[in-house]
Amino acid sequence: MKTIYFDNNATTQVAPEVLDAMLPYFRDLYGNPSSMHTFGGQVGQKIRAAREQVAALLGALPEELVFTSCGTESDNSAIRSALTTRPEKKHIVISRVEHPAVRALCTHLSLQGYKITELPVDKNGNLDLENLEKSLTPDTAIVSLMWGNNETGVIFPVEAAAKMAHEKGILFHTDAVQATGKIPINMKNNVIDMLSISGHKLHASKGVGVLYVRRGTKFSPFLIGGHQEKERRGGTENSSGIIGLGKACELAAINMEKENTSVRRLRNKLEEELLKRIPQSRVNGDIENRLPNTTNISFEYVEGEAILLLMNELGICASSGSACTSGSLQPSHVLRAMGVPFTMAHGSIRFSLSVYNTEDEVDFVIEKMPPIIERLRGMSPFWNQAGQACTNQ
Amino acid sequence: MKTIYFDNNATTQVAPEVLDAMLPYFRDLYGNPSSMHTFGGQVGQKIRAAREQVAALLGALPEELVFTSCGTESDNSAIRSALTTRPEKKHIVISRVEHPAVRALCTHLSLQGYKITELPVDKNGNLDLENLEKSLTPDTAIVSLMWGNNETGVIFPVEAAAKMAHEKGILFHTDAVQATGKIPINMKNNVIDMLSISGHKLHASKGVGVLYVRRGTKFSPFLIGGHQEKERRGGTENSSGIIGLGKACELAAINMEKENTSVRRLRNKLEEELLKRIPQSRVNGDIENRLPNTTNISFEYVEGEAILLLMNELGICASSGSACTSGSLQPSHVLRAMGVPFTMAHGSIRFSLSVYNTEDEVDFVIEKMPPIIERLRGMSPFWNQAGQACTNQ
Repeated sequence: MKTIYFDNNATTQVAPEVLDAMLPYFRDLYGNPSSMHTFGGQVGQKIRAAREQVAALLGALPEELVFTSCGTESDNSAIRSALTTRPEKKHIVISRVEHPAVRALCTHLSLQGYKITELPVDKNGNLDLENLEKSLTPDTAIVSLMWGNNETGVIFPVEAAAKMAHEKGILFHTDAVQATGKIPINMKNNVIDMLSISGHKLHASKGVGVLYVRRGTKFSPFLIGGHQEKERRGGTENSSGIIGLGKACELAAINMEKENTSVRRLRNKLEEELLKRIPQSRVNGDIENRLPNTTNISFEYVEGEAILLLMNELGICASSGSACTSGSLQPSHVLRAMGVPFTMAHGSIRFSLSVYNTEDEVDFVIEKMPPIIERLRGMSPFWNQAGQACTNQ
Repeated sequence: MKTIYFDNNATTQVAPEVLDAMLPYFRDLYGNPSSMHTFGGQVGQKIRAAREQVAALLGALPEELVFTSCGTESDNSAIRSALTTRPEKKHIVISRVEHPAVRALCTHLSLQGYKITELPVDKNGNLDLENLEKSLTPDTAIVSLMWGNNETGVIFPVEAAAKMAHEKGILFHTDAVQATGKIPINMKNNVIDMLSISGHKLHASKGVGVLYVRRGTKFSPFLIGGHQEKERRGGTENSSGIIGLGKACELAAINMEKENTSVRRLRNKLEEELLKRIPQSRVNGDIENRLPNTTNISFEYVEGEAILLLMNELGICASSGSACTSGSLQPSHVLRAMGVPFTMAHGSIRFSLSVYNTEDEVDFVIEKMPPIIERLRGMSPFWNQAGQACTNQ
């Protein structure tokens, strides 16, 4: 059975060109880039080239980049660094829809005496900058707001938010794990202090990420050990992962237009057709202000997990908005923060596309989804009542 | 020019079988193991199998293993967890010869108010357990001692040390990054609470490591985010890296005997012949109590970096004991802790072999080293004086 992969916000395939770039660094050029000998040194050179490739995508300076092991490490590093370098400040501002790498860390920190403000979002998932303004205090160490939401794709005005924080002398971090490669990012045009990237969300391998740290920003390392990454991240460099990420960033720059034309068109077609063909369905998140590859659709009165199971039987991969992996029956914290009604939030599916998806795949999903929802609704006592009510009105 | 790689304590080549095991998980089976769909779930199954392979090598339970990104992360996680779970305790015991992933972290912690005891070693690099006993106080949170030293290969009596710490209710961690795969480790036979492994030191890829956490040991995660690794390490699993590490551990169990017969024999031949052919050379570290693949040899009155450069010209890769990468001219902290005289410590070279090295390579190095040392000594005013003095005596 062919796999139709519409779950690119969870992880992406490694691009063939990226794997080709990585392969020599496993068995043949496996030297340690910190070694004195040429055999290791040549790997160091290639890592420098990769750093330039990543920098080019972000409009950053190569020395502003610290290679990490994943987005979570980047996010944790940013927030921990802010607290270590500003030890007198005990307040952190985030939003209610942040990724667990920020949100769970902040919950942990709250138990250690830090005060956390979680900014609300409106029903479309948008952030009101006035709320941010009001939340900032002389005790605030850092504001961390994601650039593009992983569940809905909604884009936060992080550049304006960073400016606002900066005017009060507060550090600003953004989790740009989902935004990178999908919308233009140019660090020369903003005052964001720190920014997180994850390799496996943009067709590099798992196990590699980046933390951008603006030149001049005081930084305290999270992983402490050897002298790697200019003393900003101990541990032998994941050379093949880093070299692959460099290539992936080069490809992302080339594919950015495609993301915003053909991927966007396929996403829109999928979304429009599903809404048209399936009654009582809706999109969660601002339709305009969104990453081009993501749509989060609720199908009222059905369970997201049940939908995913039937999709899975047809080889279609997507995610439920709900926190299925935690074993919790609570719907997604993102949709709850947006005030999505319970009967809608439970039946939400996130479709996230990539440049590797095709029109045929979209057509297949458009064809297969309506009978899946119909079948599940047929089994739901809630739907029968509601459907009845609906018909009577 | 052929590369002769005698720098396996710095990093190792990825074994062909390991790379074969990893490859499917980049482009084809790239799903996220936490996903609901089969496409991701099959990766989760393979990660479970890898966990069992690692557990088998260590005599551990699969659930006692937390996959990390590297040895440094494992070391940092262990020590940070001890301090978080025992917040009232402010004392840490390590040795003077620990890896920077432990030692630099402790230096950092000392600035935050923690008290660090660095146990001395004798001239052979051995640890005196009486010193450990004396160092333990009611305020001690954790003892962290490496199993096999990365520079000399000297083995610490960590199982006895763990017992000693345990009797006083103190946690015990060991950095077993160099020991794993070279000497038998069976966690059923000891009371070590936490143990660190690095994939790239045993023919897996860079970017993956393990922290063993004994069942029942309270653990506070270092990377905080999603629910991965049973809430002990947030961040999408580095699936290909983990699956490769599983295979590498399976191979390590098979190759353990070879490490202790043929690799040991080659190391001994190299060492004996170099000592015989090069005057005023000596081995640093206990000759008996040592990892089978490592020899650290000092050549008096020459600079390690200069030796490495001339070796490099012949394609021979090794390391200097000195902290060359830091730009410091200080000799290695390990050799200084052992009281190796300055003129000896500066000219030390670490040769570290693996099962992929051959007798021909050893013979080549035995042939090429004496003229290198002779040439450098010919340029050294110190040697001329000393040589003169030597002749006169």
